[in-house]
Amino acid sequence: MTDVISRRSGGRAARRAARAAPVAAEARSIKPGMSGGQYRPLSDDQVKQIHEAALEALETIGLCDAPQSGIDCLVSAGCIAGDDGRIRFPRAVVEDALGKACRDITLCGRDPQHDLHLNGTRVHFGTAGAAVNMVDVEGREYRESTVQDLHDAARITDVLNNIHFLQRPMVCRDILDNREMDYNTVYATVSGTTKHIGTSFTEPDFVGDALEMLHMIAGGEAEWRARPFVSNSNCFVVPPLKFATEACQVMEQCIAGGMPVLLLSAGMAGATAPSTVAGAIVQATAECLAGLVYVNAIKPGHPAIFGTWPFGLDLRTGAMTGGSGEQALLTSGCAQMHNFYGLPGGAAAGMTDAKLPDMQAGWEQMCSNVLAGVAGLNMVYESVGMHASLLGFCHESLILGDDLLGHAQRVLRGIEVDETTLALAQMREVCLGGPGHYLGTRETLARMETDYVYPTLGDRSSPKEWNEIGKPDLNNRAIARKEEILSQPSGARFDPALDKALRERFNIHLKP
Amino acid sequence: MTDVISRRSGGRAARRAARAAPVAAEARSIKPGMSGGQYRPLSDDQVKQIHEAALEALETIGLCDAPQSGIDCLVSAGCIAGDDGRIRFPRAVVEDALGKACRDITLCGRDPQHDLHLNGTRVHFGTAGAAVNMVDVEGREYRESTVQDLHDAARITDVLNNIHFLQRPMVCRDILDNREMDYNTVYATVSGTTKHIGTSFTEPDFVGDALEMLHMIAGGEAEWRARPFVSNSNCFVVPPLKFATEACQVMEQCIAGGMPVLLLSAGMAGATAPSTVAGAIVQATAECLAGLVYVNAIKPGHPAIFGTWPFGLDLRTGAMTGGSGEQALLTSGCAQMHNFYGLPGGAAAGMTDAKLPDMQAGWEQMCSNVLAGVAGLNMVYESVGMHASLLGFCHESLILGDDLLGHAQRVLRGIEVDETTLALAQMREVCLGGPGHYLGTRETLARMETDYVYPTLGDRSSPKEWNEIGKPDLNNRAIARKEEILSQPSGARFDPALDKALRERFNIHLKP
Repeated sequence: MTDVISRRSGGRAARRAARAAPVAAEARSIKPGMSGGQYRPLSDDQVKQIHEAALEALETIGLCDAPQSGIDCLVSAGCIAGDDGRIRFPRAVVEDALGKACRDITLCGRDPQHDLHLNGTRVHFGTAGAAVNMVDVEGREYRESTVQDLHDAARITDVLNNIHFLQRPMVCRDILDNREMDYNTVYATVSGTTKHIGTSFTEPDFVGDALEMLHMIAGGEAEWRARPFVSNSNCFVVPPLKFATEACQVMEQCIAGGMPVLLLSAGMAGATAPSTVAGAIVQATAECLAGLVYVNAIKPGHPAIFGTWPFGLDLRTGAMTGGSGEQALLTSGCAQMHNFYGLPGGAAAGMTDAKLPDMQAGWEQMCSNVLAGVAGLNMVYESVGMHASLLGFCHESLILGDDLLGHAQRVLRGIEVDETTLALAQMREVCLGGPGHYLGTRETLARMETDYVYPTLGDRSSPKEWNEIGKPDLNNRAIARKEEILSQPSGARFDPALDKALRERFNIHLKP
Repeated sequence: MTDVISRRSGGRAARRAARAAPVAAEARSIKPGMSGGQYRPLSDDQVKQIHEAALEALETIGLCDAPQSGIDCLVSAGCIAGDDGRIRFPRAVVEDALGKACRDITLCGRDPQHDLHLNGTRVHFGTAGAAVNMVDVEGREYRESTVQDLHDAARITDVLNNIHFLQRPMVCRDILDNREMDYNTVYATVSGTTKHIGTSFTEPDFVGDALEMLHMIAGGEAEWRARPFVSNSNCFVVPPLKFATEACQVMEQCIAGGMPVLLLSAGMAGATAPSTVAGAIVQATAECLAGLVYVNAIKPGHPAIFGTWPFGLDLRTGAMTGGSGEQALLTSGCAQMHNFYGLPGGAAAGMTDAKLPDMQAGWEQMCSNVLAGVAGLNMVYESVGMHASLLGFCHESLILGDDLLGHAQRVLRGIEVDETTLALAQMREVCLGGPGHYLGTRETLARMETDYVYPTLGDRSSPKEWNEIGKPDLNNRAIARKEEILSQPSGARFDPALDKALRERFNIHLKP
């Protein structure tokens, strides 16, 4: 095949040269925000059954442990505070909140070219999590994650086209004071990428510092409020069906500060959620509907992402597992629920239980990622870099994951069917007195860049070529690429005057 | 979480012990032949457009190079032999063949427990291909594949539950005579597994030897014809739209001998098929419809698998690539066409371009496999063990692929929604005065085996446990498992008297 092409005029060398030129963003074959929905693990009737069950759970079981502020606003919205300390949600109250909820959320990037428009079945992939370790691929070790690791993850994400946002994937364990950790997390991520950032806060009190920092970065409070480029990942419930009192107070602070929130319900099927896929989705849906009522009672239409994140469990050991087929179903089923409500939603996919970037990591990361994509999940969190059932983050895996997500996104783009792509005219030309192959046709050449996704590090050499180029090891290539990225100056770094001001006002741990 | 469980009565140790007992086939959470169809990359209208384009291609372009026997029977079926050497297929002739075609194929195993029932969207995963190399994982080398390698692949496949059939994945390069190679391929595969076997024949003349061997193994011709446990993988076309003259003659011999055939059209998008996903599917569909007319003109209702196998191409180099997102779309789109016609069909998925079982291999193998499954592809060929864009087969990857396919099959099984799985009663019990978690509920324990798939080699240990058990390397574990399987006596080996008779009649290269 190769020979046939290189004999053609121009041939392989010209093709390679054409490829070397960077492809403009608008001409790329895959883009952020392509639409899914081709995969529907639940029938329409099953979606309705889950919806009805969630309403019944809210109406008859309800949630406990809301802070007093939450109880007050929920009751004022029509919820019923029971003698047993549980707030119950009449169906009409939920429907009222659904009517008020924001259905078209823009998650801004610091650079507007990275804005994410969440609606319909538009899909975006990014990081998330709270790993406490970094994976050292070279040394085959797990070690505590640091603020520098977090910043490096942001810098790497900034240059990878198939990763669309950075939610804080790991904890800065070298910062012992939680207040300092929270604002340093904002600093380390925002200064590393101009893509949208997600973060969380340990205590309600700590939100103010972050907002002050964000106002400084944005150039003022009004500028921040016009384009909030950081959202709050908020674990507002402790499943099953309990509000997380402090997280709810954090949420109230974020809403007041104009920060979009991710209403994150992270039950574990078999432990803190029912062991069945359907039951875990029912509970997560009920919990996020409760959160939706809460948010819209405080501020109607405030941007809130419907974050049903049920996780899988290995029932043999009781340990969390992120790489299973069950996980892919949990996440894809949730995506269908978001679409049913017409609410921007997110869930977790792409996690692996593997400790290193090995074959297991590849199959586990792809399984839930590609299905979340074709299920039309607006925000695919944890989609890249996340190892050891969320305990470890890996820079090399982040880089390799960009290739993985490229393929998943090509699938998401789907199959175009029209007169040109059906190719009857071309078939006639090629077969009836033509060359008998499609190698040189205008249509083939035209589609080389616009239709196909090429891997950056994924190897497509023949065994012979592979031998000649020294049998490159995939992980070593990822290490080299990481070093190359981090040796370049970052395009996302702050203006020196701003950086100076931030460092004067805050105790910034990241070395300048 | 682990602690919570181990404090419970019975606890973790009891759970592990329960797990150690083998699970009966009927109680397993995943089975061969589960139904897909939840993923539909093409709309109903697009499916019809592809069908119409395929009919038009057959009617106006047609195929050349049929053998005289084929021309005769096609013309007698109503096809038109043109002056340009091409046979054209009026729409009514195609519709007539569709009316006669076998819509419910059983591919028998030598052991009836492995029978595959191909209809609807029932999905089966297996090997296929014609790799010329074996991947030596330990030595990081490619070397020529042998008859012993093929037999070992059969023996490994025999014990892996998630691999449902063995189509010859590699060529016996140590057998230089093609006649001997063909019947030795049958011997080496059939003597290694009691699952269904697929094979191919170099020349029409060689079919007779294989049939004679199969009659001996079955205990007579009538016994063979009652339960043919070998099918013929037949590349009856050389795309675009040319019959493969000799392969057609092989097909005629196989039909006469009572052997099911796989009508395999293996175009390469951008080279021997249009570069668009839709166009490549149109051409493959047209070619397989031509094959269907051919088979049903010879013997109405003869079992023929609709084998649209378009492959992807790296347009930069002109080299074949099997691991792309485009490939997953080609294969899944074909599955929809099979379902549209209501014909048992197969296509290729699970191939990787990676040279070794690394992270790239994992993501590429999962992408097309899981999507082919949920697209409802009856026969997923090449789904496991296939590296270097089909040039290398790998035993370790075959073993790891059983885990990979386990997850894919768990996805395929889907989400059960009923009163029990919706779990409202359980939620009530747990939340309202109950323990506040689902760890010990009867429902959770009951589902531990029936609902969940556990990996065999995939690692789910925590970083701490992983460190304690010596940081096991996935590929090394696969090597150990391979040695363990091959050191056991095979349950599929022939009765000594039969083996003696076969070795007297044929020049068997495999050492006894």
